[in-house]
Amino acid sequence: MDKDELFMKKAIELAKKGLYKTCPNPAVGAVIVKDGKIIGKGYHKKAGTDHAEVVAIKSVKDKTMLDGATMYVTLEPCNHYGKTPPCSIAILNSNIKRVVIGMLDVNKTASGGAEFLKSHGIEVVSGILEKECRDLNKIFITNITKQRPFYAMKAAMLLNGCISIKGGVSKYITSTKSLEYVHRLRSRYNGVLVGINTVLMDDPLLNCRLKRCGQPKRIVLDAFLKIPLSARIFGFEPQNIYIATTVSSDSNKKSILKSMGVNILECASTSDGIDLIDLSKKLLEKDICSVLVEGGSRIHGSFLNANLYDKVHLFYAPKITGSYGAFNVIGSQAASDFSEVKNLKSYNCKKIGDDIIIEGYF
Amino acid sequence: MDKDELFMKKAIELAKKGLYKTCPNPAVGAVIVKDGKIIGKGYHKKAGTDHAEVVAIKSVKDKTMLDGATMYVTLEPCNHYGKTPPCSIAILNSNIKRVVIGMLDVNKTASGGAEFLKSHGIEVVSGILEKECRDLNKIFITNITKQRPFYAMKAAMLLNGCISIKGGVSKYITSTKSLEYVHRLRSRYNGVLVGINTVLMDDPLLNCRLKRCGQPKRIVLDAFLKIPLSARIFGFEPQNIYIATTVSSDSNKKSILKSMGVNILECASTSDGIDLIDLSKKLLEKDICSVLVEGGSRIHGSFLNANLYDKVHLFYAPKITGSYGAFNVIGSQAASDFSEVKNLKSYNCKKIGDDIIIEGYF
Repeated sequence: MDKDELFMKKAIELAKKGLYKTCPNPAVGAVIVKDGKIIGKGYHKKAGTDHAEVVAIKSVKDKTMLDGATMYVTLEPCNHYGKTPPCSIAILNSNIKRVVIGMLDVNKTASGGAEFLKSHGIEVVSGILEKECRDLNKIFITNITKQRPFYAMKAAMLLNGCISIKGGVSKYITSTKSLEYVHRLRSRYNGVLVGINTVLMDDPLLNCRLKRCGQPKRIVLDAFLKIPLSARIFGFEPQNIYIATTVSSDSNKKSILKSMGVNILECASTSDGIDLIDLSKKLLEKDICSVLVEGGSRIHGSFLNANLYDKVHLFYAPKITGSYGAFNVIGSQAASDFSEVKNLKSYNCKKIGDDIIIEGYF
Repeated sequence: MDKDELFMKKAIELAKKGLYKTCPNPAVGAVIVKDGKIIGKGYHKKAGTDHAEVVAIKSVKDKTMLDGATMYVTLEPCNHYGKTPPCSIAILNSNIKRVVIGMLDVNKTASGGAEFLKSHGIEVVSGILEKECRDLNKIFITNITKQRPFYAMKAAMLLNGCISIKGGVSKYITSTKSLEYVHRLRSRYNGVLVGINTVLMDDPLLNCRLKRCGQPKRIVLDAFLKIPLSARIFGFEPQNIYIATTVSSDSNKKSILKSMGVNILECASTSDGIDLIDLSKKLLEKDICSVLVEGGSRIHGSFLNANLYDKVHLFYAPKITGSYGAFNVIGSQAASDFSEVKNLKSYNCKKIGDDIIIEGYF
């Protein structure tokens, strides 16, 4: 590993400290190096606060040290006035003479920092540990390039892919360790989404029940607004609940829900129910950049067939039974040709408690 | 690890050399120790040849060395005249003074060696690394205690437990590495079994296509004798093919198959097709002690619901599609209560080529 990669790795480690907390912004880390030594470092903590580059520059007490220094930053410095001024200008004013970039910005509004710095006589190198830097920001990249939230499928099933036994009973499939991990996952996503059938059958809370964890927005897809007002989900923080329904569903019930503080997302509809593209647009507008989709069967079927899944978190309990009369994890038509089957590009599998977890990206 | 465990471990390593080759006998290993040094060793290679104890005794050139020696043997020495004379007498005659046994024999016909030796003044210790010794002989123990072959379920599926896409197309699910491993598995089992639907759809050969590997018997469950005489399976070694059918199926076709050299197993029938208990009895009579059941869906459903599976070899390709119109790996009614779901007692999971394999025991 050469010197540039070594310092970029440090910047990546810093960026990771902000992971899952910077939405709608990317997680970014930066280090400043002079004479082979790190003299400053920083990472982006939260949207609206200083970007990593500015944090790193501010961390250097003696500003004369910046003269001729090199900055390593995981993402191209921004070149626009957003919630904060452009990092490109902050770098230029700092007298830093070389900027090493992990990945160029995919966001056209903010990009151009590399060109700006070059045109002002600063040496710019980009593409160092680019894959690792891109991996850091899969959510951000999906938001920008696909104009929708990053969607992850979560399911707990038997070895034959069924999420229930006969009649839809689905509780107690996986072990405590897996459930704990699901709660950790919930805190890492901006939103947790289920279909109305899951609410009617399982009456879930959808929150994170670990100590000191962030809470996701709780989203229910409910085209016909069948959700009972007595559902347990309404027991706390109605302002963090989003009921996605259609324009035509019961306006009276919509008013009641709104008066409870619940958010109603009126989405376009398709023959299949709620238009997931329209829903995606509305979620992203609310800065819900990443969503953990917890099912059930029909919901997974719709998201998968609409090519909306970016990632999977699949839990398998070491148990098996017949499939007739049970719900399969993917409640939709099977592909009629192998070319239509969705493939994971990369994945890991390991044991978690009594279960197995497969996590991967499409 | 104490000295007895250390030498028992050596005996287990020797026993493993005979694994998968000794059927219907167990795999057994033995070492003879004098003054802390191994002076003799042996393992059972094949039914009809010397047992491990006799091989070990014969391996000691200077028979005076046996005086006062200790024998470590993974399974209780036999005490009956089978294809070879009793090992208990061979040990007694050798002047060995101490016998350390891994597990007592579950086979009542052959057992009693420990008691015999004790009653003749030899010190006998048993139960050393018993679990490891039992694990060596899961097949043998199943044969004796359940009076049926050891059955392993093999299936290749998508992440949602489907073994096909729409319309039953099931080829090309898993990768080359997985297929290679399936061929290795085939050589480790005495028989490979499929249902008639798999023959009609996939026309498999069911042999092991690796170099220098043992060939399993090829078994087809075909209650109504629908198998076409042109099936590729008939292309070689008809004497190693077993068509399990019922008494009432086409006697003309039975005669033709017999004249081709194919074995016909006329089994009792149930409302579900062939009586698997009767089939099991007939397979064991033919010294088919272990069977790899390769499906399809209905076959796995029948074996699972009849509690016949001892082990699973489950391959998952990192691919997914809908389940409607596809075959689930278990084509039978789902349990209506979680207490009826079958649990793996132990299992491992790992990557194999592009796929995941889960192997475990019920």
